[in-house]
Amino acid sequence: MVSDIASDDLGPWLSEHDLDQVRRKVPMLYVDIVPVRLADGGVLDSVGLVLRGRPEGTITRELVSGRVLHQETVRQAIARHVEKDLGPLALPQIPVSPAPFTIGEYFPTPGDHFVDRRQHAVSLAYVVPVAGDCSPANDTLEVTWLTPREIVTPEILGDMSEGHAEIARRALAHLGQLP
Amino acid sequence: MVSDIASDDLGPWLSEHDLDQVRRKVPMLYVDIVPVRLADGGVLDSVGLVLRGRPEGTITRELVSGRVLHQETVRQAIARHVEKDLGPLALPQIPVSPAPFTIGEYFPTPGDHFVDRRQHAVSLAYVVPVAGDCSPANDTLEVTWLTPREIVTPEILGDMSEGHAEIARRALAHLGQLP
Amino acid sequence: MVSDIASDDLGPWLSEHDLDQVRRKVPMLYVDIVPVRLADGGVLDSVGLVLRGRPEGTITRELVSGRVLHQETVRQAIARHVEKDLGPLALPQIPVSPAPFTIGEYFPTPGDHFVDRRQHAVSLAYVVPVAGDCSPANDTLEVTWLTPREIVTPEILGDMSEGHAEIARRALAHLGQLP
Amino acid sequence: MVSDIASDDLGPWLSEHDLDQVRRKVPMLYVDIVPVRLADGGVLDSVGLVLRGRPEGTITRELVSGRVLHQETVRQAIARHVEKDLGPLALPQIPVSPAPFTIGEYFPTPGDHFVDRRQHAVSLAYVVPVAGDCSPANDTLEVTWLTPREIVTPEILGDMSEGHAEIARRALAHLGQLP
Repeated sequence: MVSDIASDDLGPWLSEHDLDQVRRKVPMLYVDIVPVRLADGGVLDSVGLVLRGRPEGTITRELVSGRVLHQETVRQAIARHVEKDLGPLALPQIPVSPAPFTIGEYFPTPGDHFVDRRQHAVSLAYVVPVAGDCSPANDTLEVTWLTPREIVTPEILGDMSEGHAEIARRALAHLGQLP
Repeated sequence: MVSDIASDDLGPWLSEHDLDQVRRKVPMLYVDIVPVRLADGGVLDSVGLVLRGRPEGTITRELVSGRVLHQETVRQAIARHVEKDLGPLALPQIPVSPAPFTIGEYFPTPGDHFVDRRQHAVSLAYVVPVAGDCSPANDTLEVTWLTPREIVTPEILGDMSEGHAEIARRALAHLGQLP
Repeated sequence: MVSDIASDDLGPWLSEHDLDQVRRKVPMLYVDIVPVRLADGGVLDSVGLVLRGRPEGTITRELVSGRVLHQETVRQAIARHVEKDLGPLALPQIPVSPAPFTIGEYFPTPGDHFVDRRQHAVSLAYVVPVAGDCSPANDTLEVTWLTPREIVTPEILGDMSEGHAEIARRALAHLGQLP
Repeated sequence: MVSDIASDDLGPWLSEHDLDQVRRKVPMLYVDIVPVRLADGGVLDSVGLVLRGRPEGTITRELVSGRVLHQETVRQAIARHVEKDLGPLALPQIPVSPAPFTIGEYFPTPGDHFVDRRQHAVSLAYVVPVAGDCSPANDTLEVTWLTPREIVTPEILGDMSEGHAEIARRALAHLGQLP
């Protein structure tokens, strides 16, 4: 029996091949971040969604999301993914409490849960206010800021994966701003 | 380069060797469960700790804790670990909300976080009231029920790992019962 | 200047006149309770709504809700209102943690907040699983159990006050079950 | 029977006499605010306590705390009390979510709950990061910033009321920083 993960690769970054193997063994830990802009007095103004182009010409809208790496704290993962998607000048308020407001459970096969074709993943979800300029480094991305009322339209929710759409709506409810 | 994880072993249970390899690649997802007994009116009566004997003759006290397996929901993992440690008649109230009251971050090397020599693990922590009989199937275990005031004594906290002691105290605070 | 509240009436129950006066002075503290039935494994099955007939022939659907009285704990208020609306055999799981999952802010005049023509009220909102028989003592009431999908229809939400409809939807989101 | 509250005084501020009367009728709604300073990455640095001199020469340490007024939102009450105790340049992050991390229940007579000789009060407790300068307008006050380890010493906790000491420790637990 030949094994598929290189034992001498101890860094947090995995090769495509090794990542593919690990994904078949254990649930992967993610963070799902709902970036928000606040009006005066801490009231929610708008929610940021990341726009990505698909090769086939369609677009998708996504939360800021990604893996927690080996030896990385959840806070470091949040900061890293916010910087990756919103740029280095976003001035995020990293959550003071480690408790997520909800979790997302993604399974490779459809059912009662969110679907992620690649893997079984569990995400810790946080609302992260950003006060600075958001300018994604990667030019294939754009960040759009939408009001709660705009977010919950079928058009916008339809541009998101079922999981992200649900996490976004749970965030609005958590903030007392579900239209 | 020879890989170390068998690609054809797709079940949730990993061989010792494969588990060891995966642990060096990604954070492992755990649940930390604080079992509680309630008095009338839903007020906390006592917290259950699992007693384990060590080969060297010492004992340790632990929360109900364990991995979330591949393709297993967090609720299923909670139910499985409660049954494993408290027996099939414990009548646990599995949490209605998926949001943990806190998370634990365990790292293999000492620092600002909890320590787990084996791995980087992140636990979702839940309080689980149990109403039935707790009789561990495995006879090397015993469950003891301690009041909040007993839990926070140096003797009891000293029998627990730093991580579990801290999760237990956060649970008491979350329940408004930190002595 | 003649005062309007009797100083010698120190019990928790206020006369209509005194209650009316107090309501013009301070925010009134309420509990808003979302009764739920659970399926196996702790998954949400249905939400209970209290049906009330109006003199003009219309009906309204309500959460279990009411004032916290002077010298009464929040837990006692929850237990009292559950018994009042769901009967003495409902077997409610009074929340173990005192923290509400959300709060409702009701103001006498329309605006960005919920409206309660009678008063400024702030409610602490809790999800309360009930395992027993629900049979309201007061025969003008009925309790109906609706699935999450039934709750969020315009018909059902339209039978509820804006505040209760919103608290119910926030509860579904908190439980990870917002359709 | 002569009443004691003037019906024509509809403003949020009550005379001493009217406040005294209302306090004997209904629970009073408060906010208990735990001001914190954050280090890089959102990690808790220190907690702010307000120092007050007592006529008899002793000092007490307090959280930022006070009543929610009639027709005032909870957020407005938080902002008002932070400005009152920490000054107009504190730059507080008013909570985005309306849900308190815990509640405090204060009763006029000793028992299982916190004691407030004046009244039955229920407080909504929030952690509020402040980024600016804290300089109390009222010169009888001073704000001291203490690390989690300093807060939980018997000396500091002994300078606080039992209720505030407990809310402060629950806040540390909620933030994952209970020493």
